[in-house]
Amino acid sequence: MIRTIEWTDAGVVMLDQTRLPNEEIYHIYTDYSGVAEAIRAMIIRGAPAIGVAAAMGIALGVKKSSAKSIEELDRAFDDICGVIAGTRPTAVNLFWAVDRMKALYANVRPQGIEVIRRVLVEEALRVYTEDIEANKTMGRLGQELIPDNARVLTHCNAGALATAGYGTALGVIRAAVEAGKKIQVFADETRPFLQGARLTAWELQKDGIPVTVITDNMAGYFMRKGDIDCVIVGADRIAANGDVANKIGTYSVAVLAKENNIPFFVAAPVSTIDMKIPDGSHILIEERNPDEVRKIQGVAVTPAGIPVANPAFDVTPARYVGAIITDLGIARTPLSESLKELM
Amino acid sequence: MIRTIEWTDAGVVMLDQTRLPNEEIYHIYTDYSGVAEAIRAMIIRGAPAIGVAAAMGIALGVKKSSAKSIEELDRAFDDICGVIAGTRPTAVNLFWAVDRMKALYANVRPQGIEVIRRVLVEEALRVYTEDIEANKTMGRLGQELIPDNARVLTHCNAGALATAGYGTALGVIRAAVEAGKKIQVFADETRPFLQGARLTAWELQKDGIPVTVITDNMAGYFMRKGDIDCVIVGADRIAANGDVANKIGTYSVAVLAKENNIPFFVAAPVSTIDMKIPDGSHILIEERNPDEVRKIQGVAVTPAGIPVANPAFDVTPARYVGAIITDLGIARTPLSESLKELM
Repeated sequence: MIRTIEWTDAGVVMLDQTRLPNEEIYHIYTDYSGVAEAIRAMIIRGAPAIGVAAAMGIALGVKKSSAKSIEELDRAFDDICGVIAGTRPTAVNLFWAVDRMKALYANVRPQGIEVIRRVLVEEALRVYTEDIEANKTMGRLGQELIPDNARVLTHCNAGALATAGYGTALGVIRAAVEAGKKIQVFADETRPFLQGARLTAWELQKDGIPVTVITDNMAGYFMRKGDIDCVIVGADRIAANGDVANKIGTYSVAVLAKENNIPFFVAAPVSTIDMKIPDGSHILIEERNPDEVRKIQGVAVTPAGIPVANPAFDVTPARYVGAIITDLGIARTPLSESLKELM
Repeated sequence: MIRTIEWTDAGVVMLDQTRLPNEEIYHIYTDYSGVAEAIRAMIIRGAPAIGVAAAMGIALGVKKSSAKSIEELDRAFDDICGVIAGTRPTAVNLFWAVDRMKALYANVRPQGIEVIRRVLVEEALRVYTEDIEANKTMGRLGQELIPDNARVLTHCNAGALATAGYGTALGVIRAAVEAGKKIQVFADETRPFLQGARLTAWELQKDGIPVTVITDNMAGYFMRKGDIDCVIVGADRIAANGDVANKIGTYSVAVLAKENNIPFFVAAPVSTIDMKIPDGSHILIEERNPDEVRKIQGVAVTPAGIPVANPAFDVTPARYVGAIITDLGIARTPLSESLKELM
């Protein structure tokens, strides 16, 4: 069992995903600003895991707040939510978690500071357990789409490490394996942060699921060669029309899959679906530190100071997406209609 | 002026492309087996540069041979050619250069050992100077295809470092700049060997041509965003029907370009065109050491021992290729017909 994030009496514990697979190091965060910094620095990443971290960060901040009056706590709560919401812009689960905690705060506010503190912690734990349940449900539903003996390509890490546990895309793969299917995974290494090479490979290896790491630019080669039967990825935000924001490179994989008549599936809990935006053009794409491209694990791979771009996500238009596997059911094309029905 | 490879009285001098851009180190090879090992280890790489290195390696081997009789030299020559030809399988320029040296050897053999030695060195120098001339011609012809203010995507390194000098794809870009056009280059970093991040960035920076390095999986994002006006790449082998073998990832770039209605050009001297094979299915794709994927500049980026794949090239079907720029003219669609006419 991979412990991505945990609530403990001492604070929020996270497995440091910047250090995997070479080192398995856990940090304990004893205040909300530490949790915020961990999200920003990608100690924890993956949309559902960010949602859980946000909820726990807010609960921690309120628990540790020195506020003596409800008005003081109101101000502290606003600050905490602002800091947490300001960490990363693309994954909607972050804002979904913040909004959920805000709504609960408003609801229980009349009962006073101690009740708020207790109830917010309970809610953060509920976000955590619900996420695992959602992944199990997606796995059960989604594994029907994966044929026996399938060679499945995935991009980035949409696994236990990207969630409270079990995973979205990798949850579907795990469920297929648990259903007795023989699955071979191809994992795009996923530059610049190497979530595929470092994290997907690590967690599948731990589970004994066969995985082959390829560089991102090899995916098309293996598709054309007939070595890939389907693609399954996670998502950071899904618009009402089915456009999918996910890790940079997902769009390229989807285009290559379409060109080679390979089904392309997305697995994401409904907390990743943002029905407030009509399409992907409304999704803000985070631009991260250029040194993530210039250096790999601290080693320079470009001439010093060379201009680089580092968009962390891209948007795959709905027309490339064969199905979206959610915890409320599978949305099929036309996605705009089936998502509306599901939600 | 970048000195990729040079013939000197002391031996064959090469700029070590495995160490760029962090270190600019030159090696001198005083026997043909050193040259062969340099090709295999990618101290020198790029199809035309490999052709030049092969010719120089053979000339060096014959020059240094202790053969006392023509029969002894025949055997030594066969060994030398075999070792050089066995270094890498995909770039046809290697075999083209070996065949050229073999044909010359057969021609001048009646004139004896000393003439053979002298003439082979002269031929190797001719392969070198002809390659630079071919690149200049391709530049002049090809730059007409590049509009002013173009944002040009390239993959791998098809520059001065991949040739005797000036470059194929980057030669076209250089010629466009020399013609007064304002060009902005996007360079795919090109995992696993990082020719784009390390080599293309380095040589364009030296020339003052604006370049932005992106990870391979970002190319589609920038194409869809409308930030790329055309793509130009080199080639390692071109079949009679116009199928193009080039660095792994080229196929993906070509598919993405087609999907986004962006012209996709290939620049390669006629020594890269292999009219003996009808299509790309006859091209052997080199599988390189898995540690090139598992490690980046010596640093592990996957769990130890994880299975990886490392095909060094892919084949882009002719239907994705808008034009092939050669030193004998520009081949346009239908490529099978125009290549036949050119050759």
